[in-house]
Amino acid sequence: MAFKPHSVKGFLLDITGVLYNSSPEGGEAIKGSIEAIARLYRESTLRFVSNESTSTPAKLHAKLTRLGFTLKQEHLFTPAPVAADYIKRNGLRPHLLIHKGVLECFSDCDTTNPNCVVVGDAEDDFTYENMNKAFRVLMESERPLLISLGCGRFYQRVTGPCMDLGGFAIALKYATGCEHIVLGKPDESYFMAAINDMGLSKEEVVMVGDDIVSDIGGAQSHGIRAIQVKTGKWRPEWEKHYVNPDFIADNLQHAVETVLDAK
Amino acid sequence: MAFKPHSVKGFLLDITGVLYNSSPEGGEAIKGSIEAIARLYRESTLRFVSNESTSTPAKLHAKLTRLGFTLKQEHLFTPAPVAADYIKRNGLRPHLLIHKGVLECFSDCDTTNPNCVVVGDAEDDFTYENMNKAFRVLMESERPLLISLGCGRFYQRVTGPCMDLGGFAIALKYATGCEHIVLGKPDESYFMAAINDMGLSKEEVVMVGDDIVSDIGGAQSHGIRAIQVKTGKWRPEWEKHYVNPDFIADNLQHAVETVLDAK
Repeated sequence: MAFKPHSVKGFLLDITGVLYNSSPEGGEAIKGSIEAIARLYRESTLRFVSNESTSTPAKLHAKLTRLGFTLKQEHLFTPAPVAADYIKRNGLRPHLLIHKGVLECFSDCDTTNPNCVVVGDAEDDFTYENMNKAFRVLMESERPLLISLGCGRFYQRVTGPCMDLGGFAIALKYATGCEHIVLGKPDESYFMAAINDMGLSKEEVVMVGDDIVSDIGGAQSHGIRAIQVKTGKWRPEWEKHYVNPDFIADNLQHAVETVLDAK
Repeated sequence: MAFKPHSVKGFLLDITGVLYNSSPEGGEAIKGSIEAIARLYRESTLRFVSNESTSTPAKLHAKLTRLGFTLKQEHLFTPAPVAADYIKRNGLRPHLLIHKGVLECFSDCDTTNPNCVVVGDAEDDFTYENMNKAFRVLMESERPLLISLGCGRFYQRVTGPCMDLGGFAIALKYATGCEHIVLGKPDESYFMAAINDMGLSKEEVVMVGDDIVSDIGGAQSHGIRAIQVKTGKWRPEWEKHYVNPDFIADNLQHAVETVLDAK
């Protein structure tokens, strides 16, 4: 294969569908992932690059710890804090259509007389009424701006696949013709923040994810190699997907062994 | 102007935003429209080409009559009966995410073990749970097919603009990668059904609508002239829209006078 695992010095890991499968009750670790993370902390370097938009990094860290993982909270990259930072730097006033779990990330933002909309994975709060509220903020803005926390198509729960926020963001864009900024994967600056944090270059790392478009295609479009895992939202028809992963692994453990055992 | 009103022999009229403005209570006739329709019935020929997907033609006719209009029910073209016919002709089994008001149009359709999704203007039934149900039908289909009753961006209610079904259809397409068929404006066959029913050619008619993309751009893309009215969802910034109407009228009455008084 063209993939040269011995040149990998660091890992970018998606979380949901790679470390664990989510469920309304919290989810369960994917077999072998706890051991794989422990091995990566011993033998390599890693950052978690997630589009998780229902939890703050602190809550996500607590959840992963509860599921049995040992990892450092400062290694978790999620879109909500990045978006809150973007909003403050640009003097924006957001209308928030996001999950209650990340509201606190935006507690410093001025939400009076909003001039942009932030869409996260609002789940059951994606009602027609709430979509219309966000729609009207955009329609009333002189330069309507939509910021989405990633733009995922769907994610896998233990109970089955669920629509991710991407469709709802695209719906608002379609209805209003607004400008749309994605903060999260597959945005290049999002991958680069994690890579820079490891002190590595993008040629030295590999992204491991379950989403062939956002994780694999996203990473590759910026020159980052990517391993697709057959867990989480993986679908067999992706064997023929137009995105061609550098390697397809059965799961995270297989991906980690493939790289580390090649050295 | 390049628009030659004396060559117009028949009218295609959008309904919502042209004849009346809708509201949760039923709406109100737009000033001058009742008289304009009466004059068209006396002096020309006309059909109503609507993307209305919350009422059957019978209920829509009753509503317009209640608002003061005199018109023939058989002159009303709406997407729901067209979609039901398409579904039966193609042996499809629909999952319905539509407004309760048009459910009866699909009463003859087999909805067991669905192999396609029909999206109409479900309004408050566009919940996350219902979007996910439709999403899962598409994800489980071998050749996922989405049929939408038009693909409107938004419509104007007395209380303000509201998201139309288009965004929700596009959301499902984005999340699933399904095939998407639009039955309604701006589909050519939909315009042609009404034009053929008048016994005219498309060069002999003019479309009058308030939606610059679906009504005006849609008609023009099939070689049908189109008058934009400054009622309903009209927005001043459309003066600079990439779609260039053949004529912009203050309202339906002005459009009708412009054509009929030119003769």
